[in-house]
Amino acid sequence: MRLKIAFQGERGAYSEEAAIQYFNQDIEFIPCRDISTVFNVVEAGIADYGVVPIENSIEGSVNETYDLLLSTGLRVSGEVYLKVTHCMIAHPDADPRNIKKVISHPQALAQCRIYLMSKNLEPIPSYDTAGSVRKILEEKMLDTAAIGSERAANIYGMKILDRGIEDYGRNYTRFLILGREDSEPTGEDKTSIIFSLPHIPGSLYRALEEFAIRSINLTKIESRPTKHRPFEYYFYVDFEGHRKNSIVQETLNALSRKTLLLKVLGSYPKAKIV
Amino acid sequence: MRLKIAFQGERGAYSEEAAIQYFNQDIEFIPCRDISTVFNVVEAGIADYGVVPIENSIEGSVNETYDLLLSTGLRVSGEVYLKVTHCMIAHPDADPRNIKKVISHPQALAQCRIYLMSKNLEPIPSYDTAGSVRKILEEKMLDTAAIGSERAANIYGMKILDRGIEDYGRNYTRFLILGREDSEPTGEDKTSIIFSLPHIPGSLYRALEEFAIRSINLTKIESRPTKHRPFEYYFYVDFEGHRKNSIVQETLNALSRKTLLLKVLGSYPKAKIV
Repeated sequence: MRLKIAFQGERGAYSEEAAIQYFNQDIEFIPCRDISTVFNVVEAGIADYGVVPIENSIEGSVNETYDLLLSTGLRVSGEVYLKVTHCMIAHPDADPRNIKKVISHPQALAQCRIYLMSKNLEPIPSYDTAGSVRKILEEKMLDTAAIGSERAANIYGMKILDRGIEDYGRNYTRFLILGREDSEPTGEDKTSIIFSLPHIPGSLYRALEEFAIRSINLTKIESRPTKHRPFEYYFYVDFEGHRKNSIVQETLNALSRKTLLLKVLGSYPKAKIV
Repeated sequence: MRLKIAFQGERGAYSEEAAIQYFNQDIEFIPCRDISTVFNVVEAGIADYGVVPIENSIEGSVNETYDLLLSTGLRVSGEVYLKVTHCMIAHPDADPRNIKKVISHPQALAQCRIYLMSKNLEPIPSYDTAGSVRKILEEKMLDTAAIGSERAANIYGMKILDRGIEDYGRNYTRFLILGREDSEPTGEDKTSIIFSLPHIPGSLYRALEEFAIRSINLTKIESRPTKHRPFEYYFYVDFEGHRKNSIVQETLNALSRKTLLLKVLGSYPKAKIV
């Protein structure tokens, strides 16, 4: 049976590409309108896993993912880094010399600003990259190109005029894989947690002490304001190690005595950047 | 002489509203297309100050602000929290019963999703909120409303159909004020810094030790991947206290011996949430 994978966006979105890179097998895709729908669809058991952007995203709000992680019952069961390569994509009947406008998500347009200026192309905002490619097809646009992935061009049968048009070369988006269970230890794992602290000087320092004294390496830390009370923060921390490891368990136990709230999102194999 | 203030967006943008709230005096505004232009215009001395979104923004990318802070010679000389209140804005000649579509920045549309669904309105993405209000005027759109600020409605002479249409009530965006010098101590100050660390377990803990042993309260911490090498991070930290305070100076001196890079962005009066 094929794995059912939910992602935000439509066919050809970068999230879909991240899923293919991660699962590397035959997949039945469930495109979702919002990131919250991805969470819902996995929680309801309609999909086996969800793929959501978490850092440096192009499509979809990362803030939304952070907020949803706080309230979900799902587990983070994996991560994947996708190298984002933007293509200029046009209708097969279009003459490249007649292209005057370029449609895409505002973030993708922003990431290709120097390229668009150098070619004197007018940027037109849209909801997402893959949807822009579909629009070129459906409305048979001949004076407008779209910015999107090679995969989106192939799915909609459009032609690629140019590749790697982003202004900065090393453009990675990190995605989390959401499941109903976390992953088994592999020896090269990460764990993601959320905690909140009493708002007194040194409380973060004393919390991180539990990692430092056990030589556990943090790979990410971020404080995010709570939705309801400004100036109150949740801390999102990723660290090396699996929650089933006894030293990690000891750390989490000690941490729970220093935090107001502690939520373990899950442990998963550390991604390699390809 | 009036203060010259640069901001990203066009007249009526939320950044402009943040500037009015912060400076509370007669201002000559310099609207800029990008956040990077705001930095450039202040660096060149064309504007006295710039106003840029940093947390939970609607218009403009916060990632962009973080990246620009790393390389700028400007100082953070203030901060302001703006309560974002979205309005449904229509042409004065429009009959509210004929409104079928709503144009705005994708983030603003997303923040009003429940409202738009309940009214069965079709969301149409655009570059920014204020520009959407201007478009309603210029193209005399009678079947389309815009989501934007009350101020934008007034500037373009449009009418407000509804106020506070965002799905979550407490929606604040934090803006930084950029200047060529930081602010003098007021007794209630914050300092913003960026640093990088050797990638060894406990390095962040040992860096934060310098704050904890001096009872300095952190108000924000965020690790952000460096643009060029994935898995390498810069830490963006805000803490209470002014850089001219002797204990803060001692902390920064001690911190500089534990960090690979330490950049003090500036000290400024702590904002109140109004």
